[in-house]
Amino acid sequence: RSEDFDLAAIYVSDAQYNRNIYFDTSPQAVSLYLLYNHWLPRVLVYFFILVDMSLAVFEEPAVLPLPTWATMLVELLCLLVFTVRLVHYAKVIPRDKFWKDPKNICIICIVLTLIDMIIYGALTATNCYALRWSRVLRPLLLVNVTEGRQLRRAFRSIRNALPEIFYVFLLFMFSVLIFSLMALKLLGKRGLKTMDGSPYFTNYLEIVFDLYVLVTTANSPDVMMPAYNASFIFTLFFILYIFINTYIFMSAFLAVVFNNYKKYLKEEVRQLVRAKRHKMVRAFAVLQERREEGGELVVTQANWNQLVRLVQPDISNAHRELLWSVCDDKNQGFIGKLAFVQLADLLNIEVITLKSRPHPLQSICPTLYLSAPSRLLCRLVQHRGFTIMYDVIILANAVFIGLDEENPMISNSEWVFLFLYLLEILLKLYVFEPRSFFSKHSFWNWFDTIIVVSALIATIINSALKSVGGYTSRQILDIVFILRVLRLIRVVDSIGRFRTIINTLIRIGPAILTFGQLILVVYYIFAMVGMELFKEKVKFYDEDSNDPAKAYCGNPLLKGTTFAQLNYCKNNFNNVMSSFILLVELTVVNQWHDILHLNHVVMVIFVSFVLEAFYVEYSVDKGDLQTSLERKIEELELAVAQWYRTVDAFLQRMFEADLDPEDLAENDDAEAQTNFANPSFSSV
Amino acid sequence: RSEDFDLAAIYVSDAQYNRNIYFDTSPQAVSLYLLYNHWLPRVLVYFFILVDMSLAVFEEPAVLPLPTWATMLVELLCLLVFTVRLVHYAKVIPRDKFWKDPKNICIICIVLTLIDMIIYGALTATNCYALRWSRVLRPLLLVNVTEGRQLRRAFRSIRNALPEIFYVFLLFMFSVLIFSLMALKLLGKRGLKTMDGSPYFTNYLEIVFDLYVLVTTANSPDVMMPAYNASFIFTLFFILYIFINTYIFMSAFLAVVFNNYKKYLKEEVRQLVRAKRHKMVRAFAVLQERREEGGELVVTQANWNQLVRLVQPDISNAHRELLWSVCDDKNQGFIGKLAFVQLADLLNIEVITLKSRPHPLQSICPTLYLSAPSRLLCRLVQHRGFTIMYDVIILANAVFIGLDEENPMISNSEWVFLFLYLLEILLKLYVFEPRSFFSKHSFWNWFDTIIVVSALIATIINSALKSVGGYTSRQILDIVFILRVLRLIRVVDSIGRFRTIINTLIRIGPAILTFGQLILVVYYIFAMVGMELFKEKVKFYDEDSNDPAKAYCGNPLLKGTTFAQLNYCKNNFNNVMSSFILLVELTVVNQWHDILHLNHVVMVIFVSFVLEAFYVEYSVDKGDLQTSLERKIEELELAVAQWYRTVDAFLQRMFEADLDPEDLAENDDAEAQTNFANPSFSSV
Repeated sequence: RSEDFDLAAIYVSDAQYNRNIYFDTSPQAVSLYLLYNHWLPRVLVYFFILVDMSLAVFEEPAVLPLPTWATMLVELLCLLVFTVRLVHYAKVIPRDKFWKDPKNICIICIVLTLIDMIIYGALTATNCYALRWSRVLRPLLLVNVTEGRQLRRAFRSIRNALPEIFYVFLLFMFSVLIFSLMALKLLGKRGLKTMDGSPYFTNYLEIVFDLYVLVTTANSPDVMMPAYNASFIFTLFFILYIFINTYIFMSAFLAVVFNNYKKYLKEEVRQLVRAKRHKMVRAFAVLQERREEGGELVVTQANWNQLVRLVQPDISNAHRELLWSVCDDKNQGFIGKLAFVQLADLLNIEVITLKSRPHPLQSICPTLYLSAPSRLLCRLVQHRGFTIMYDVIILANAVFIGLDEENPMISNSEWVFLFLYLLEILLKLYVFEPRSFFSKHSFWNWFDTIIVVSALIATIINSALKSVGGYTSRQILDIVFILRVLRLIRVVDSIGRFRTIINTLIRIGPAILTFGQLILVVYYIFAMVGMELFKEKVKFYDEDSNDPAKAYCGNPLLKGTTFAQLNYCKNNFNNVMSSFILLVELTVVNQWHDILHLNHVVMVIFVSFVLEAFYVEYSVDKGDLQTSLERKIEELELAVAQWYRTVDAFLQRMFEADLDPEDLAENDDAEAQTNFANPSFSSV
Repeated sequence: RSEDFDLAAIYVSDAQYNRNIYFDTSPQAVSLYLLYNHWLPRVLVYFFILVDMSLAVFEEPAVLPLPTWATMLVELLCLLVFTVRLVHYAKVIPRDKFWKDPKNICIICIVLTLIDMIIYGALTATNCYALRWSRVLRPLLLVNVTEGRQLRRAFRSIRNALPEIFYVFLLFMFSVLIFSLMALKLLGKRGLKTMDGSPYFTNYLEIVFDLYVLVTTANSPDVMMPAYNASFIFTLFFILYIFINTYIFMSAFLAVVFNNYKKYLKEEVRQLVRAKRHKMVRAFAVLQERREEGGELVVTQANWNQLVRLVQPDISNAHRELLWSVCDDKNQGFIGKLAFVQLADLLNIEVITLKSRPHPLQSICPTLYLSAPSRLLCRLVQHRGFTIMYDVIILANAVFIGLDEENPMISNSEWVFLFLYLLEILLKLYVFEPRSFFSKHSFWNWFDTIIVVSALIATIINSALKSVGGYTSRQILDIVFILRVLRLIRVVDSIGRFRTIINTLIRIGPAILTFGQLILVVYYIFAMVGMELFKEKVKFYDEDSNDPAKAYCGNPLLKGTTFAQLNYCKNNFNNVMSSFILLVELTVVNQWHDILHLNHVVMVIFVSFVLEAFYVEYSVDKGDLQTSLERKIEELELAVAQWYRTVDAFLQRMFEADLDPEDLAENDDAEAQTNFANPSFSSV
């Protein structure tokens, strides 16, 4: 029945995209669930979350002030959309599951926001002091919305790693306290003076703070200079301190986070794999048929085809047949449970169909395209020399960009370079089939074309403006400059090693986005709190302002501080933009004693993650694969098949020759690292 | 024959300590080789290397000046010792091997040093300018001496990782250059000013330098403040820059180093294991007997016993019998090649014999020791409350230390605490058997006793001096203070989690020493070069000096620079101490743009290493094991045996129940992580 196929298709696609929703299996709920997973409502929800969060730009303290009623109206609209989405979700899953779902933090957020809006509206109407405290809850929606799986997983990893980290941190703090006590006893009584003449290392709490900052090496060597000037023996104390606390403890910290992260990631992946298998088994149960009395349960090729067509309507026939031949490797016309279960993973493997289509010009005008000069041109463009020539041109371009563009000769040279770049693209389009030139995987071709065409348009607009009014728009000029410089990046693609590194970075990009969201959530919460606490505490005055308050950022408390001296007035919490920039600065300058360490933990996990991802990507560089997590799942599943084959080889070699176990161990390892190109559960 | 046993014993002990010297097998060379491996000549060589290197303290520019003839005489003595050692080495190994050995860099060093000394002597005798350039070669001896295997391995790892790192570094530099070009174009024409009024971002090379430093976040946010004050859009540029170059590239850098380090370590370990096996096979060949006509070659228990007694004379009979029973698990009275080969690893495994000896007091005076009050005391001391009480005492002590010790009440309290700590040790000695209390593995007992006894002695000396002359020695007081604070560390031992972390750190200590040597070598070379280039360029004047040159560290070029303003005059290359401290400061302050990046690479490899070591140690926390590298070798060897057993279990389970491959993969992994307590090659 078609309903069965719908149900099975949903199971398969849930397994494919790792969705874990226990939906109702009634036909009505199934069709609602299909709608729920449609890309449009999902994109809409994300759009409205974005709108909701960006309201901070327009609310007091605002970058672009809007009346309160306008922002509240928009927020109400957002809340409405979220509510509709939640009601839809409630219709899809069984009633008893709905109330147990942790995603219902969303409901609490919506209700709290509504309450806050009512209170705020009432208070502002009566001119009382009012606080929009519910703004802190907005990023929680991003985390708890159904699609925020990756983000939730990242948060879970952090939460799980925290206890271990806490112990290392405690030990680290203990070490700082002990060293501070020693510094107090050793240096406090010697009457040393710091640079500005104040007594050196006499107050215990100040020493703790100084030594704590020393871990970040931010105040090195200033903090040790008075002691060093007194005797070089004391530097031993500081060197030992830095060695233990900066190098040993930070390494231990990284190691603990890394290990924990790996451990919990493994656990998460295991659960994912189990859930996936569970769903595939259910899909199998829906479609299974008994071939003969007492025989095994199977799925026929016809049913399988219909299912795959439902799951991925845009799949080509050739691709589908390829997948079938992988599953049904004995060519029986039906497959068992084991072969069926791997369908979700097979669908996730990207198959690039390299069709050697003829060039369209060849079909339109074969005599001209296949003539001797045309073919010579093709050969020239495909020659290595062509690439090298353009690398040289790019380098020459870099020199010209670096020179002063006031010189008319140089500003005109820009047209020459633009022409050369355009020519290159046109030549390539002449030689290569356009559809394969602009295929999904040709990152650099897309990059090149977009940059060159944009640069052309911007340069033309700029010249037009100049010739019309003799006036140059700063903004357009900026864009032109940026585009010119970006063009130079292309040279990276010519060097194989660089391409590998860049491709690795691009491939781990989507996963890095998850961390971007995570940091956005943390920053948003801190920005909201910071704005309520510190807004207008520090003011920025324009360059040409004559206000005497300019010297101390409008806050008498800052008179004479280095903060004011260094003109840091713009580092404030006066609006959401400044807050974000300030938070980034705090993260960057001192990775340790800011923002309750939370950011550091996030950064370390980020580094661990990049380490992991790099390791995986670097070793499996050839071939087109999915994101790192997906592949991890696959590896776990396919490793067993791989392993089985290795075991076989091992047993054979075992009784063949003089045993050389470490060799075997090595080989096994090397084999395990190669990519698992052809899964073969069926051989098990 | 006894010569055979000598030869076999040498092979085994070479395998045990991973020595790779191709010595001559003639009886004469074998006895010379035994002498060569004796601990005394090895310690002597290290001692003279240390003397040779520490000559830098006494040579111009000196910390403690000695006449030139004295230092040269000592150096000649050192060279003589090294030469004797080399001649000894030449006698041990075959002539043709000797000349191919890379360790002969030592010969070149010695010859070059001699030449340099002659030239230097001649030049100083004629009052010409002379340079002791051969001092740079001294640390090379530390690397190339026969015992510097670990150090050479570390250097090799670095050298092998360099090409990969170089590509990432190139790409990183490319990115900095591109960003600088963009900054020049975007910000250079806007007429912005830095804090001190100079034009902002107008010189390309200055921008490159500024952005390069920004990667270390040393000049953040100062470098972006002028742009931020102009418009917050520009901060996007800086945030993007920091994100890409500080976070992405540094992570990629770490990942590449980490992967390469792991790869080459694996290769090194593989070679080590192969060499070890080779030696054990040779030892077997020396001792093998044919049991029966056409039967297998074996070693009898008697021969084996004699061999083990030769290799480790101090081994107990019980321990030896245990090892034999592990090898000969079928109790046949002889073992084959496979069982014999694992002997070197078995000898490396530390076996702790927990003898429950009676307390000596019990044997001397049993009635008193076993009386009711004595037994109550024993129970009290072993109670948890006793430990908690002493933790509280330590905390109270910490508070008292923090308070002002001028107060007589508080300075007298010190005696109370000393008494309490002494009492604790005496009580524990009363309760626990002294030899097991001071066993090799009771780190904290040793720590405690040494600290408390030293503190007692220092405090008594201090009071004696005070009561005699009313005068307190600053040095002794310092020592007393340090000892008092160190006592507090003991509290760490009471908390299980902390103990785990500390034990891990202590256990990876020996391996960290290798890195310490490595850094010493690098620092020494740089210090020597730096001293010749920069000595007396920057001078330090005493606090109470009235020389006007004090304001600019005696160098007119430093007038008005921040270097002089911050009173950094003591950071100079005027003697070897200052040079070392300066180099440490440079390593610490900016991990990137110093000392030709070499230190950073070393640091990253160090971090990778700690990561690795921590991972291994953390997961195998129970049980007493050797250093991490040794265990790695073992793991590789024993993993195969382990693996074989797992394969068996796997195959059984495979056909037993519903296949759940990811579960099996998980279990396999978990099993592989447990320590390989009982090797069983014999089961293969």
